[in-house]
Amino acid sequence: MAVKKTSKPKRDLIIDGALKLFRAKGYDGTSMRELAGTVGMDAASMYYYIRSKDEILEEVCFRIANRYIAHLDSVEDDSLPGAEKVRTLISLHVRLVLEDATAVSVANHEWRCLTKKKLTAYKALRQKYESRFAAIVGQAIQDGEFRAVNTDVALYTLLSSLRWLEAWYKPERNIGPEDLERDVTTLLMRGLEPTGTV
Amino acid sequence: MAVKKTSKPKRDLIIDGALKLFRAKGYDGTSMRELAGTVGMDAASMYYYIRSKDEILEEVCFRIANRYIAHLDSVEDDSLPGAEKVRTLISLHVRLVLEDATAVSVANHEWRCLTKKKLTAYKALRQKYESRFAAIVGQAIQDGEFRAVNTDVALYTLLSSLRWLEAWYKPERNIGPEDLERDVTTLLMRGLEPTGTV
Repeated sequence: MAVKKTSKPKRDLIIDGALKLFRAKGYDGTSMRELAGTVGMDAASMYYYIRSKDEILEEVCFRIANRYIAHLDSVEDDSLPGAEKVRTLISLHVRLVLEDATAVSVANHEWRCLTKKKLTAYKALRQKYESRFAAIVGQAIQDGEFRAVNTDVALYTLLSSLRWLEAWYKPERNIGPEDLERDVTTLLMRGLEPTGTV
Repeated sequence: MAVKKTSKPKRDLIIDGALKLFRAKGYDGTSMRELAGTVGMDAASMYYYIRSKDEILEEVCFRIANRYIAHLDSVEDDSLPGAEKVRTLISLHVRLVLEDATAVSVANHEWRCLTKKKLTAYKALRQKYESRFAAIVGQAIQDGEFRAVNTDVALYTLLSSLRWLEAWYKPERNIGPEDLERDVTTLLMRGLEPTGTV
């Protein structure tokens, strides 16, 4: 008899199920018992794959945070001007939301529920991300590629729009992924670039 | 003996104390006992002024939501072009954050903790606010005052930046209120306005 083709590993199925529940009902509002029911396992079998609810949240928060850091890594070494780095970061951010909306949403809304030690590490990553992003924006302002506005105002106006994309972008709005990426990039970049830039 | 000049009413002091605690520790993380301690009253006396924690959250969420609705009321009857209405709404929003940061922050982060009935009413107000704001933005796009982008993308790019202002704007950033208002307005309006607009 042919060996059955391996589908998604059980652990990944449990994590996917958990993220859907966390997004719909919040991390605090989801129980492991409910999760087991959703993925069609009894709790004891599920604990063979996953130690705790904490473990799932940690995994998703750090996975997403590391994706953002990887975006920075990919542009920082680049010889592109600062404004082009920011344009690339905007695109990468929009694409991550499109690809992995549920995980981005859970990380965004539930990171405060991380256990104390992990929360400290997560905040440090977030801080590092923001200061590296600020350095790119600040340089672009200094080089005259962006308007002479306060760097923090530019950074957080940009980041707030990108971060909350996951909360409002829904299939029922009928906005295609390319249109979303183009319009978000236009609005944010045209806000940053000095008037007259083509 | 002269009557002592009346200072802020007790009830307002309790609400102010509660908002500070909700902001620092979250709504769920704050107890009425702790609140009583903070405002220097015993719990029984405090309950003379305030029925419950729910009542405080309701009051602040609807107070802030009604301020936003009042902003719309004040521009909708106006004969200004749509783009100018949006500019005014941006200014009013920034000023509300500057004036009443703690209340704006609590409403923003904790509205999901409203009791079921109040939550439904709050969501309806929020929905109404967003669709009225969308109508103004959509009209400005149609009139060519704003770029030809998707109305929802324009609306939520704008609203996300404005909503999350309270989360990052802190005195230690050393950004004056006028600078904040000017830079936020520039970034958002220049993003929306067609290139070439002076």
